[in-house]
Amino acid sequence: MDINIIKEKKDMIPSLLKEFNIDMWLVFVRESDIMKDPILDFITDRGVTWQSAFIFTKDGYEEAIVGSLDLDNIKDSGLYPVIKTYVGSIKEPLLETIQKFDPKTIAINKSADDIMADGLTCGMFEYLQGILTGTIYLNRFVSSEKIIGALRSRKTPAETEKIIKSIQITEEIYDILTNKLTAGMTEKEAADIVKNEINNRGLVPAWDPSHCPGIFAGADSAQAHAAPSDRKIEKGMIVHADFGVKYEGYCSDLQRTWYILKDEETQAPEIALKAFFALDDSIQASFKAMRPGVEGRIIDKISRDRLKDHGFEEYPHALGHQVGTSTHDGAALLCPEWDRYGQRPYIKIEKNQIFTLEPRITLPEYGAITMEEMVQVTEDGAIFLSTPQRKLILIGGK
Amino acid sequence: MDINIIKEKKDMIPSLLKEFNIDMWLVFVRESDIMKDPILDFITDRGVTWQSAFIFTKDGYEEAIVGSLDLDNIKDSGLYPVIKTYVGSIKEPLLETIQKFDPKTIAINKSADDIMADGLTCGMFEYLQGILTGTIYLNRFVSSEKIIGALRSRKTPAETEKIIKSIQITEEIYDILTNKLTAGMTEKEAADIVKNEINNRGLVPAWDPSHCPGIFAGADSAQAHAAPSDRKIEKGMIVHADFGVKYEGYCSDLQRTWYILKDEETQAPEIALKAFFALDDSIQASFKAMRPGVEGRIIDKISRDRLKDHGFEEYPHALGHQVGTSTHDGAALLCPEWDRYGQRPYIKIEKNQIFTLEPRITLPEYGAITMEEMVQVTEDGAIFLSTPQRKLILIGGK
Repeated sequence: MDINIIKEKKDMIPSLLKEFNIDMWLVFVRESDIMKDPILDFITDRGVTWQSAFIFTKDGYEEAIVGSLDLDNIKDSGLYPVIKTYVGSIKEPLLETIQKFDPKTIAINKSADDIMADGLTCGMFEYLQGILTGTIYLNRFVSSEKIIGALRSRKTPAETEKIIKSIQITEEIYDILTNKLTAGMTEKEAADIVKNEINNRGLVPAWDPSHCPGIFAGADSAQAHAAPSDRKIEKGMIVHADFGVKYEGYCSDLQRTWYILKDEETQAPEIALKAFFALDDSIQASFKAMRPGVEGRIIDKISRDRLKDHGFEEYPHALGHQVGTSTHDGAALLCPEWDRYGQRPYIKIEKNQIFTLEPRITLPEYGAITMEEMVQVTEDGAIFLSTPQRKLILIGGK
Repeated sequence: MDINIIKEKKDMIPSLLKEFNIDMWLVFVRESDIMKDPILDFITDRGVTWQSAFIFTKDGYEEAIVGSLDLDNIKDSGLYPVIKTYVGSIKEPLLETIQKFDPKTIAINKSADDIMADGLTCGMFEYLQGILTGTIYLNRFVSSEKIIGALRSRKTPAETEKIIKSIQITEEIYDILTNKLTAGMTEKEAADIVKNEINNRGLVPAWDPSHCPGIFAGADSAQAHAAPSDRKIEKGMIVHADFGVKYEGYCSDLQRTWYILKDEETQAPEIALKAFFALDDSIQASFKAMRPGVEGRIIDKISRDRLKDHGFEEYPHALGHQVGTSTHDGAALLCPEWDRYGQRPYIKIEKNQIFTLEPRITLPEYGAITMEEMVQVTEDGAIFLSTPQRKLILIGGK
């Protein structure tokens, strides 16, 4: 990640600790090459090998404790004014710092609901508890989910700019795909068009390249989270695509839908047009309801209810997620009150957060119609960062 | 990872559960794009989005439970005969499977000592405990560290073959580097030679490319885990390098050391030769002691004691680690009894495990001398997979 953004983000930490009334935040990690706490990229541009601690206090004190052979690497980044090292055990230097600041609350990265705030593994927590056994600090742990949620989702102007650029590139590639898409092409061939355009720009896909882009042709396709197949795009099919790019560390995530006209057709079937209209209406309705202070579940419900009003079924996923350095970012989520989302539907949305809006309608005969747009929450509403698809795009025909 | 290796590894699971007397192994994960449990690559070639479970029993039953939109992707891989899906909550299908098999012990990926067996995050564990609250299974958890340790470190012939190939390529690139290395070159320029050779072979470095290769010139260099700098390689310096490549998913990790002759020199200084001899002796002595059943700490101590016998200080890290799909792999470790290594020094080494041997001597005036070799444990000893560096390589001079 851009070192200037890491600095901007790190500078937010003391005020976040004050806002959430947390005395100390302890990011406790090891072997970042193997399984990296997702918040690490926001606080350092370097990896660590042995048990390591990044410590922040409400008063703005910052310290890193790393194994002795990691010292030069962490020092070289210039992000930590105080770095302690150890050879045998992190216990002594860590206890010393905790005792010195005597925090009433120590936030650790543990969250059942938000993977972004759940970077502490069970074994590392056990090790940390071992270090603090016999001290008064063993029972002072709280979750860092509010800190991490705010740190990730309160986008700075520099972050927003990178995401807008990422969206623009994705839309540009969608235009190229629309021009090249034809019946007879396979899902894989359509995906290759997108992959080449991403490569040619020196960029990488926003998520796992095995299914970014996803191309879904017709009713028998996987419809989501699957690799493009050798299935042929045929006349009379609905086709949709799902992809984004990573631009200077920041992601986009957009979906677009096409209808492949049959030879005699000049328009998509009635039911497809009806579904498209309902989906567009659902996006616009939920978009209009977005403003700071509204819980995500309310926005999600507006979209779902609107689809039901139009006579369609609800979709088996959330209306929208935040986007940032990862395509699924931040704690607040526009989602229904399902167990799998935990407390996330009840988090109020905030200014500067960037969400997707991606309802879908699956037509058993044609495939899934789904647009995914990206919006940013403002002072008193929201603005589209993407240019919404307001018409079902027709390919081929007479 | 190669799907055939995943199949080989998955096939080992029932016998490992029997060997360690564990009824069920539950790999409980989510959002593998964001923070991936390191064992996931051994049991699936696909990612998951929502809370997902991969379940294995002693009797060879296998099942995956995933969010509904992940179904097609997991099904397409063909690795799981039984796949259950859910929309709202994984609770019901998961409880159903657990109750059906009524396991006395459920292994979960929780390990204070071994990051490879510590893929379960605190929040996911909390969520799992929530699901099992009120059932008899809440207190039946055990650590999967033995299963994962064995699964990763008992290399199959196909895995060993890939690692040997990876070592050969690394040695080939070391030969090229030796031919090109000269006084006046910066660490970065030397690193670029290695990077180009890796790129030209269509491969990637074995670890974080910011410090793979590591090139360390002279006494003031970082000596480990740091990016190559603009420091110039000068006559009279000891230079060492540390890198490996990833070949079809499997890593190598080797270090080599050079001495840059001064104009009037035809040989390295006495102390450098003495240190090199001590280091070589230390590697050979620990190598000869390796055989199945010996604890890692014993091998580590032989190397350390031998250096002390030669009048040198011990090094601030382990003698050697296992290598596999990651450069730091498996549970058994050739390490001293330091707190940071937990119980790992006491694990007995086993046949087919692949270790590095990498003691070091730091000479305050010249820099660090360190060779890192790779060896495999056999029925009654060990064999070198790399071709050990037995002489300090001299660059330049008269």
